[in-house]
Amino acid sequence: MSEKQQWFQFQIEAASGQARAGRFSTPHGDVVTPIFAPVGTQAAMKGGVTPAQLEEAGANLVLANTYHLHIRPGEDLVAEMGGLHEFMQWRGPMLTDSGGFQVFSLAKLRKVDEDGVTFRSYLDGSMKRLTPESSIEIQEKLGADIIMAFDECAEPYDHTYSKAAMERTHRWAQRCQEAKKRDDQALFGIVQGGIFPDLREESCRAIAALDTPGIAIGGLSVGETKEEMNTVLDQVNEILPKDKPRYLMGVGSPQDLVNGILRGVDIFDCVLPTRLARHKAAMTMTGRINLQNATYRNDPAPLDEQCGCYTCQHFSRAYLRHLFNAKEALGGTLVSIHNLFTLLALVRQCRQAIEADRFADFAANFLANYQDGSQ
Amino acid sequence: MSEKQQWFQFQIEAASGQARAGRFSTPHGDVVTPIFAPVGTQAAMKGGVTPAQLEEAGANLVLANTYHLHIRPGEDLVAEMGGLHEFMQWRGPMLTDSGGFQVFSLAKLRKVDEDGVTFRSYLDGSMKRLTPESSIEIQEKLGADIIMAFDECAEPYDHTYSKAAMERTHRWAQRCQEAKKRDDQALFGIVQGGIFPDLREESCRAIAALDTPGIAIGGLSVGETKEEMNTVLDQVNEILPKDKPRYLMGVGSPQDLVNGILRGVDIFDCVLPTRLARHKAAMTMTGRINLQNATYRNDPAPLDEQCGCYTCQHFSRAYLRHLFNAKEALGGTLVSIHNLFTLLALVRQCRQAIEADRFADFAANFLANYQDGSQ
Repeated sequence: MSEKQQWFQFQIEAASGQARAGRFSTPHGDVVTPIFAPVGTQAAMKGGVTPAQLEEAGANLVLANTYHLHIRPGEDLVAEMGGLHEFMQWRGPMLTDSGGFQVFSLAKLRKVDEDGVTFRSYLDGSMKRLTPESSIEIQEKLGADIIMAFDECAEPYDHTYSKAAMERTHRWAQRCQEAKKRDDQALFGIVQGGIFPDLREESCRAIAALDTPGIAIGGLSVGETKEEMNTVLDQVNEILPKDKPRYLMGVGSPQDLVNGILRGVDIFDCVLPTRLARHKAAMTMTGRINLQNATYRNDPAPLDEQCGCYTCQHFSRAYLRHLFNAKEALGGTLVSIHNLFTLLALVRQCRQAIEADRFADFAANFLANYQDGSQ
Repeated sequence: MSEKQQWFQFQIEAASGQARAGRFSTPHGDVVTPIFAPVGTQAAMKGGVTPAQLEEAGANLVLANTYHLHIRPGEDLVAEMGGLHEFMQWRGPMLTDSGGFQVFSLAKLRKVDEDGVTFRSYLDGSMKRLTPESSIEIQEKLGADIIMAFDECAEPYDHTYSKAAMERTHRWAQRCQEAKKRDDQALFGIVQGGIFPDLREESCRAIAALDTPGIAIGGLSVGETKEEMNTVLDQVNEILPKDKPRYLMGVGSPQDLVNGILRGVDIFDCVLPTRLARHKAAMTMTGRINLQNATYRNDPAPLDEQCGCYTCQHFSRAYLRHLFNAKEALGGTLVSIHNLFTLLALVRQCRQAIEADRFADFAANFLANYQDGSQ
C-alpha cells in the first residue's frame, strides 16, 4: 500500500442510525469524525486565540480560506514560509476551501464564465481571477491536507440558475481533479443544486462518480430554512457513497451539528463560535447567553457550569461582562475559547453516543433541551 | 511574629553596587525583585493576554488601576465577586495604584482642594471625587496585596506647584495611613518633588518617616529627560532607607529598567509592552522591531532568536507582520506575550547578574548594545 493510499482512508468505526463515527487519515494525523472544524480565515483564529489555546480547546481539523489568503498575504509567501501548517503553526490536519464560496458571496463586480470567475480585490480594487486550475494551484501552495474543488454556490431558490451553476460546478470539479498534482492532499468534490431534489440527485451522482476521497455538501446555510436544509441532507445521505466522509460546508450551530450528524454528516466548519464571541454571545449546550444582559452584572457563575474549558474553569459571567463593557480584547478571546470548546465537546459527545448506539436518543434529548434565541 | 509581620518583609538576598536582589513577602506569594509588573488597567491585560499566558510569560506581580476600576465596574462589584485576584484570576501578588496619577493625567475638569480631587468621569460625564480616605477604601475593596497612597503628580518643571503638590502628597499619605484598615495589604508611600533636589530630599525624608513597608518614587517618566530621571534616582537612592523595596512608578523601557536597577530600584510597572504590541512593535534585548517594516515581509526568523517565549518558539516575523496587515487580533496578542516575556526575562537576567555581583558590567554591556529607535 502506497503512502497515498494509507492517507485519506475513511474508516467507519461505529454507526447509530444514519450517524457515523469515523476516522479519516491525513499527513498531519487522523480527522476523528464527527468533527467540527474551527475557521482561521486569514491563517489565524479570530479573537486572538492562539494555536495552543485552540489545541487545548480540543480542535483537530482547522480550516483556512483560499480567497482571503490569495489576496493577502498571497499563496507564494505562505509557500515560501513552509506552507500553511508551518506559517500559522497548526500541527493537526488542515483544510482549505476553494475560494468559490467567497468569490460568490463577498466579491464585488464578479463575472462568471465557463473558464472561471473574475472579481475585484477588496484590498486594492485590482481585478483578480480564479479558475478551477488556479484554485488548485493556490491550494497546493498553501498545502492543507484537504483541499476543495472550485465550485459555484448559487442562490438556493432559482432552479434555472442552480442548474447552470451545478453543471458548471461538475465540469469545474473534473478540471480540479485533472489539475491536481500533489499526492499528500485529498481533493473533495462539492455537491450543489440548491433546494431542488432533481438537481441534488444529479449532483450527488456526478460528484460521486469522480471518486474523490471525500465529498462536500455545498450551497446550504445560504438562506434556505432549516427544514429545507434537513430535507436536502436526508436526500443526499441516501445517495452519496457510504464509505466517504461527508462535509457540510459552513454549518455550525449546535442544532445544525446534531441535525447534520443525524443525517450522516461527518465534517462541519463554521465561523459562528468566534463571530458570536465578538458579539458578546456565549454558546452553551442548551442555548445562547448574551453577556450584554444586565442579569449577568454580578453573576459569579461560569458561562456553563458543565463546561471544562479554560474560561469556565476560571472566569465568572460578571467578569466576562465587565471585559466587554470595558472593551477589553480579553472578553472576545475568553468567550471564543469557550464557544470553540463547546462545539468541539458537542461533537465528541455525539461520537460517544454513536459508539454506544444511542445517537437518536441523544439527538432528541439535545434538540428538546436546546432553546432558540439568547438568554 | 504575627502574620502581618511575616508578610511585607523585605529581604535583600544579594547586592551589586547599588543594585539589589530582594524578596518581598505578600499574602499571594513573594515578589522577587528586581521585578517588572505588567499592567492590567481594567483588571485585564490588553491584547487578549490571559492570566495563563501571563504566568507562562513569567509574570509575578501584576498591577491594576484604581481610577479605571472605580469608574467601571466599580469596587463594590469587584468586592462582591471576591476581590481583584478572584475577579481577574491572578493568583500571584497584585498592586493597585491610588488613582492619583490617572486623575491628574487623564481626567477632565479636575479640581484639587486640600481634602481631595473632584473630576469628571470619562464614562458618563458625572462628577466623581477621590480623597486619600476614599482611595484607600476603594483599594481595600479591590483587595490587592500592595496599595498606594493617594498622591498628586505635578508637572516636573514648576517648583512652586511641585512644592505645593508634594506637601499635599505628604499630608495625604499620612491620611491614607490613618484610613487604612486591612492588615493583609501593604501601603506604599510615594515620593514626589519633580526634578528639584531640595523637594526630592524633603519628600524622601517625609515619606520615609511614615515607615510604610515600601516606598514608591512618583513623578518620573512624565516629561523630564532620561538624565534628569537618573539624577533624581541617584539622589533618592542615597536618602531612602535601604531596607524597604523601592518602586519606580510607570517606568518600563528596557533601558529604564536597567538604569533604575543600577540606582537601587526594585519594582517597576509600565503599559509599554502591550501598548507597543498594539502599535506593531516588538521589544528585544537590543532594541525595537517595527513589524510594519517591509523588511520582515518574508522573514522566517522569530522576533528574537534568543527569546524563549511562546511567540518566538513558534511564529515568524513574516507571520506576525501578516497578522497585523490582516488586522487579526492574534498579532497584538502574540507580540504582547513576547514583549511581556522580554521585560520579565530582562529583570530575571538583572537579578542573576546581581547575585553574581557583576551587575555594573551587565548594565554597561546591555546599554551599549541597546539601540534607540526601531528597526
